[in-house]
Amino acid sequence: MAISRKVKDALEDASWVRKMFEEGEELKQLYGEENVFDFSLGNPNLEPPSSLKKALKDLAEHPIIGMHRYMPNNGYSETRRVIAEYLKEESGLPFTEKHVIMTVGAAGGLNVALKTILDEGDEVIVPTPYFMEFKFYIDNCGGRIRLVETNEDFSLNIQEVEKGIGQKTKAVLINSPNNPTGVVYDQPSIEKLAELLKRKSRELGKTLYLITDEAYRRIVFDGTKLPISFQHYPHTIRVTSHSKDLSLPGERIGYIAVSPLCEDVDEFISAIVFANRTLGFVNAPALMQRLVAPLQRNSVNIRDYEEKRDLLYRSLTDFGYHVVKPQGAFYFFPKAPIEDDVAFVKELQSKRILTVPGRGFGKPGYFRISYAVEMRMIERSLPGFKEVAEKCGMNRQ
Amino acid sequence: MAISRKVKDALEDASWVRKMFEEGEELKQLYGEENVFDFSLGNPNLEPPSSLKKALKDLAEHPIIGMHRYMPNNGYSETRRVIAEYLKEESGLPFTEKHVIMTVGAAGGLNVALKTILDEGDEVIVPTPYFMEFKFYIDNCGGRIRLVETNEDFSLNIQEVEKGIGQKTKAVLINSPNNPTGVVYDQPSIEKLAELLKRKSRELGKTLYLITDEAYRRIVFDGTKLPISFQHYPHTIRVTSHSKDLSLPGERIGYIAVSPLCEDVDEFISAIVFANRTLGFVNAPALMQRLVAPLQRNSVNIRDYEEKRDLLYRSLTDFGYHVVKPQGAFYFFPKAPIEDDVAFVKELQSKRILTVPGRGFGKPGYFRISYAVEMRMIERSLPGFKEVAEKCGMNRQ
Repeated sequence: MAISRKVKDALEDASWVRKMFEEGEELKQLYGEENVFDFSLGNPNLEPPSSLKKALKDLAEHPIIGMHRYMPNNGYSETRRVIAEYLKEESGLPFTEKHVIMTVGAAGGLNVALKTILDEGDEVIVPTPYFMEFKFYIDNCGGRIRLVETNEDFSLNIQEVEKGIGQKTKAVLINSPNNPTGVVYDQPSIEKLAELLKRKSRELGKTLYLITDEAYRRIVFDGTKLPISFQHYPHTIRVTSHSKDLSLPGERIGYIAVSPLCEDVDEFISAIVFANRTLGFVNAPALMQRLVAPLQRNSVNIRDYEEKRDLLYRSLTDFGYHVVKPQGAFYFFPKAPIEDDVAFVKELQSKRILTVPGRGFGKPGYFRISYAVEMRMIERSLPGFKEVAEKCGMNRQ
Repeated sequence: MAISRKVKDALEDASWVRKMFEEGEELKQLYGEENVFDFSLGNPNLEPPSSLKKALKDLAEHPIIGMHRYMPNNGYSETRRVIAEYLKEESGLPFTEKHVIMTVGAAGGLNVALKTILDEGDEVIVPTPYFMEFKFYIDNCGGRIRLVETNEDFSLNIQEVEKGIGQKTKAVLINSPNNPTGVVYDQPSIEKLAELLKRKSRELGKTLYLITDEAYRRIVFDGTKLPISFQHYPHTIRVTSHSKDLSLPGERIGYIAVSPLCEDVDEFISAIVFANRTLGFVNAPALMQRLVAPLQRNSVNIRDYEEKRDLLYRSLTDFGYHVVKPQGAFYFFPKAPIEDDVAFVKELQSKRILTVPGRGFGKPGYFRISYAVEMRMIERSLPGFKEVAEKCGMNRQ
């Protein structure tokens, strides 16, 4: 055997995802890219804010000596300082630059955070449906994922989380706004989760961590206010990125913020910086660290995503789809009108619509629509969604 | 226990390195940064080539729509194509873009390559002295490092490599030009290593891999020609970066090149792309992928490093230091004139010279000088090197 058994197994597991991707590519070859409605990837279509483009131009015109060199593994002090100021203002907690570690995106940040806390066999609780890369991230660090159900509307089910917690639990990992559902966990549910973690930490005689993947934090609609987990639970580690709010996913720039109230916080931060270095990230890309620093209060035009959500939500419910109205991110996670989500996704493919079956997120019977695409594409795809709904016998509401 | 035991132990092991770093920082505070001669870090002082700066300016002025978005996890096709052309020309082997995977630097690339091949408990042979991060990279993937001695002049000792190979061996990892010694492994030694790996693969009935960390490949002196391992061993994986040749260490841009002759090469490449994604690297930074593409035949002015090597080599040998003349990279690894390398490094500190003790590279009794610094700093440091040599009773040659 040439390659690692674990990797080989994972590749085989993933082979149907690849097969569907390949079928999508075939459709594009057959009908032309513009005639295939690709809702399969979470790749933002919006351009970064013009202020970022201008900052890049200024820096390229007036380069700073040494600006591409190594810096400390946690990142530039100046960038971390402005992020800490933002977090301090947001949370009212005494964040300083030391609590912020710049990372290679949120995916890098999650691997670093997990490596920092997990011993072999430790469990991490993840509410499902979930972003399936989490499984690999946890496994990379010797941990085990423990999936727990959410409610019908994909809100946090605290009883299920409680049932999942045991001797081996080390952390709960939540993602809100959520990929794939677009659901935002509200203030009461975060408060209850915090209470549960405090009580369970006492009962188990160990610190349980709350890792919050907040990559979609700024993409929220209807004036939704996101709860600030830092205010409710001291052992909170926020992992986020500028992939979505500044539309920079290819540049791999994000950060970890450790609550100043975290136990043994200095040692904890040293461990994070060590993990960031030795996992091979070394540091977040230098140029992007400079560019994102002044944009901590900026984002792409969220209203653009909201309009797309509104159109799709109106249309899908009108066609008879059962779907929770998302308050954030750029995903819908409707129920598939037939039991087999893969078969249903193939039905949509017959209308040149590409989506991802729910089992790709640990939840068969559903499918994910990523609408970070052009409005025109959404509009042109609607007849296809409608025809498939009719074919599957969905009743109009 | 809050943080992972493994990370905690590693942090404690590393605490004396940190202590020395902190002592160095204290010296800088005390005497001013310009009066401390910092040879401790491998952080290139040279600026990237002006063509790269110009390319950045052009791109910033005329941005391409979507240039910061996700691309396939292996990187832009165009970048991989030009690298493959370069490798094809260099090796005469049928490299195409599929054999090249863009990575988050060489550190990222090494983690990806190791993850791809290692099962729990597999061993990786590393000649010593060595870049100690390798130990963590191997451990991250469940592997075990197996150190083997080199010859007195730090050249490869094939007998020692052979003695190290056993049932659990999966790969040999070499780094040439070498950090910390600056030594280049010559053509005959690579040929012998390849013969050994072929024979042992047959004997053990499994494929042994040769991973070559070639981060310093273009930094060679005296017209030295580096052997091309691809030509000698089919199961060769080259990991490299543009941190040193284009002076971009903070930007984290490198690549893995898989030999087209590698067994099951398509599956192997799929596994690498999977590991790149699921370790959380996702893809190499987008902007840098574009910038380095046209610079595959460029580098910083290597003559600059060669002049610094020449001055330091002449001076150190003149002062009585025993040192192998390096043919590449930007390091010296002289013998410490007293047994205790840490004590000797402290002696140098008393002259405001910062270096790293050999035990930081698995070789006590030596110390590393990184000369990727200003010429003026080298010149001003020489009296200190001389005084310490005299104090330690070294004879002038």
